[in-house]
Amino acid sequence: MNKLAIDHEYVSRRIIEFMRREVRNSGFEKVILGLSGGIDSSLVAFLAKEAFGKKNVHGVIMPYRTSSPKSEEDALKVAEAAKISWEKVEITNMVDSYFSFFPDASPLRKGNRMARERMCILYDLSARDRSLVMGTGNKTEMYLGYSTQYGDAACALLPIADLYKTQVWSLSEYLGVPKEVIEKKPSADLWEGQTDEGELGFSYHDADDILFELIDRKKDRNEVITLGFKSEVVDSILEKIKNSEFKRRMPKIAYIHDKAK
Amino acid sequence: MNKLAIDHEYVSRRIIEFMRREVRNSGFEKVILGLSGGIDSSLVAFLAKEAFGKKNVHGVIMPYRTSSPKSEEDALKVAEAAKISWEKVEITNMVDSYFSFFPDASPLRKGNRMARERMCILYDLSARDRSLVMGTGNKTEMYLGYSTQYGDAACALLPIADLYKTQVWSLSEYLGVPKEVIEKKPSADLWEGQTDEGELGFSYHDADDILFELIDRKKDRNEVITLGFKSEVVDSILEKIKNSEFKRRMPKIAYIHDKAK
Repeated sequence: MNKLAIDHEYVSRRIIEFMRREVRNSGFEKVILGLSGGIDSSLVAFLAKEAFGKKNVHGVIMPYRTSSPKSEEDALKVAEAAKISWEKVEITNMVDSYFSFFPDASPLRKGNRMARERMCILYDLSARDRSLVMGTGNKTEMYLGYSTQYGDAACALLPIADLYKTQVWSLSEYLGVPKEVIEKKPSADLWEGQTDEGELGFSYHDADDILFELIDRKKDRNEVITLGFKSEVVDSILEKIKNSEFKRRMPKIAYIHDKAK
Repeated sequence: MNKLAIDHEYVSRRIIEFMRREVRNSGFEKVILGLSGGIDSSLVAFLAKEAFGKKNVHGVIMPYRTSSPKSEEDALKVAEAAKISWEKVEITNMVDSYFSFFPDASPLRKGNRMARERMCILYDLSARDRSLVMGTGNKTEMYLGYSTQYGDAACALLPIADLYKTQVWSLSEYLGVPKEVIEKKPSADLWEGQTDEGELGFSYHDADDILFELIDRKKDRNEVITLGFKSEVVDSILEKIKNSEFKRRMPKIAYIHDKAK
């Protein structure tokens, strides 16, 4: 049996209960999330609809002028399939206004700015609507640090952050996320032709298998390599885990007096 | 003796050591920060200059069209007094581009967006310069939650977050921060006439005295009131501490299986 297999009914129930409890304990009834047309936000939209009802979930589609039209189509398809409300806010003017000051900025800088622009919009609209911003990060992305700090990583709650990417795929299928969204190659769509796996340098299947051994089974580097995984991939993943540690904790405080903790 | 009195030499040494250690351990040599013309960012600029030398500290002045010209003048005065490099990036075009979609947005929404816009700029410029973003939050602000989440609260390190506001004042004097900056009324300058103390509903002196009893001396509500503090102020502070708890931790993750921790 696949070690990453999950009980879909149990897992979705746990997540839905978590969302309800946390949102209500914070004094809210509604949630908001960015819909990218990708699998992670699509799954969170479907889970949120189950948790709060379609009237209490709002999706925001935030294309940039170079974003693939296919992403926007897919995002719309997801909003329609989940029957949630949605709106579109183009990020082009804000992003281009900024980079008119820095016309030579690299694609990476532009991509990170786009992710942060979307965060700014979601937080502003959440204030307008009295709703909470749902994060769409999954466990693979969290450990690899494959996100923009204070951009897509910024949110109130992380409903699917204990699910590896391959588990996100299987849960999405179970919950009826549109097939095209599940089957397409994952991409942050921050520049043309970008794919997650191309950028990471390994497949999500390999990443998840290796992360599972490292994180869940607490195996060390050599034990994981002995299982048959390529040492370059294991080392690359270990480095990404280490280099992204700062994204998984609060900024460090300069304590004046040493603390016991 | 004033219970909030600090040993300025010791405290600044601790903070400088912290900054050096953390920045170097992260693989960086330079830092960047927003200069608002206020006391917190001014103090961090002076401490950073001591820690890294003036060539490795960069200040960014980010006015909005309605920002007080006095704020910008003071920010410039601080950069010149600390002899650090600086640049100015106006946030007006980006913020106004966004609110052209939402012309009825409240001043609070606009203020939060401005704070997040500045974060976006600092993070982008930190990527350009290979530097780390210094936070300017102090202990009073951290406990009261008087900041914008993923805006001014977003940073790599918090050098002065273990100092109450009144301690920030006294350390600033010790380190030679320009007098005008120390003496003016604290304000986020997000809208005209805004002052921190007006918005909070109590003075920083009262807030610090009460927070010290609650946090450092671990006294409860009634014990603090018995010391002679007004119950309305104590209750208001307790409520702010509670309501801002989410700003002091990472987003909660929906764990599928219960964790021991």
